[in-house]
Amino acid sequence: AMEKSYTSMFLLLVAIISCALAKDVGKKEAKETTAKPKLPQTLSRGWGDQLIWTQTYEEALFRSKHSNKPLMIIHHLDECPHSQALKKAFAEHKDIQKLAEKFILLNLVYETTDKNLSPDGQYVPRILFIDPSLTVRADITGRYSNRLYAYEPSDISLLYSNMQKALKLMKTEL
Amino acid sequence: AMEKSYTSMFLLLVAIISCALAKDVGKKEAKETTAKPKLPQTLSRGWGDQLIWTQTYEEALFRSKHSNKPLMIIHHLDECPHSQALKKAFAEHKDIQKLAEKFILLNLVYETTDKNLSPDGQYVPRILFIDPSLTVRADITGRYSNRLYAYEPSDISLLYSNMQKALKLMKTEL
Repeated sequence: AMEKSYTSMFLLLVAIISCALAKDVGKKEAKETTAKPKLPQTLSRGWGDQLIWTQTYEEALFRSKHSNKPLMIIHHLDECPHSQALKKAFAEHKDIQKLAEKFILLNLVYETTDKNLSPDGQYVPRILFIDPSLTVRADITGRYSNRLYAYEPSDISLLYSNMQKALKLMKTEL
Repeated sequence: AMEKSYTSMFLLLVAIISCALAKDVGKKEAKETTAKPKLPQTLSRGWGDQLIWTQTYEEALFRSKHSNKPLMIIHHLDECPHSQALKKAFAEHKDIQKLAEKFILLNLVYETTDKNLSPDGQYVPRILFIDPSLTVRADITGRYSNRLYAYEPSDISLLYSNMQKALKLMKTEL
């Protein structure tokens, strides 16, 4: 007889993701693309090809803990114009790209099952910092009170200073 | 005051992974590499650059369920010679590369927290099939009774026929 072990039910909890700040988009399901991507697919997904990106949340947490670097997690979607615009600003900002080297980096197009990564909901783009003690830095926020972890391209300097904050507070608090 | 929300304890459960069949290696911890990889890093990690690879387990399950394709998960490690040898055999086997297009594909160097993915332990290399109903196909095994989901390069034809089995049983059973 075939042994069947069902995967955890949490796996069925597929995230319904909304595209932040897009008034006309609202809630939409993560969409599967049928077209083949340009090969080979990269872990950077365009957020900085020269940077080292982790593949999964488990890997990112492990590396953050063991390297004592803060973790920066970017949730985004290919079909979200706000994500695309922020990605462009992020990838082209030389100081951000340089500072990003001091972080363990992860960009995700699918939500994890850890609700600590969505303190005020699941939306994209959404950027969260986690320190090496594996504490989500919910205090590091952008300018939008309804979506605390969203950034627009015009907020790129705030994002830069938040990255500095994540590095600085870590030094003084840990 | 800084709001701290601690990530789930499961995150601390970093997998101790053993390299299958390596008598002299035994249990070893997943090792962090300090050297920069060749850029850009790819999702294929060398298992087939022309194939489409998913990034995370959550994404893979979502795509399997919605595309009705079986999911093939390869656990491996860069520093494991058995993983490397199997990867080479897998990447160079034209029929396997062709057949792999019919699967949702995921290769992982960090274990997930789903214990259904380690029916007889966490070791590498280890290949599991999951059907689109999200059932782990624990019945599709290799030749080693102590590590049912391990394959050596010389088992590449068995792996190929197991891939056919995963596709065939799915059609008749679902």
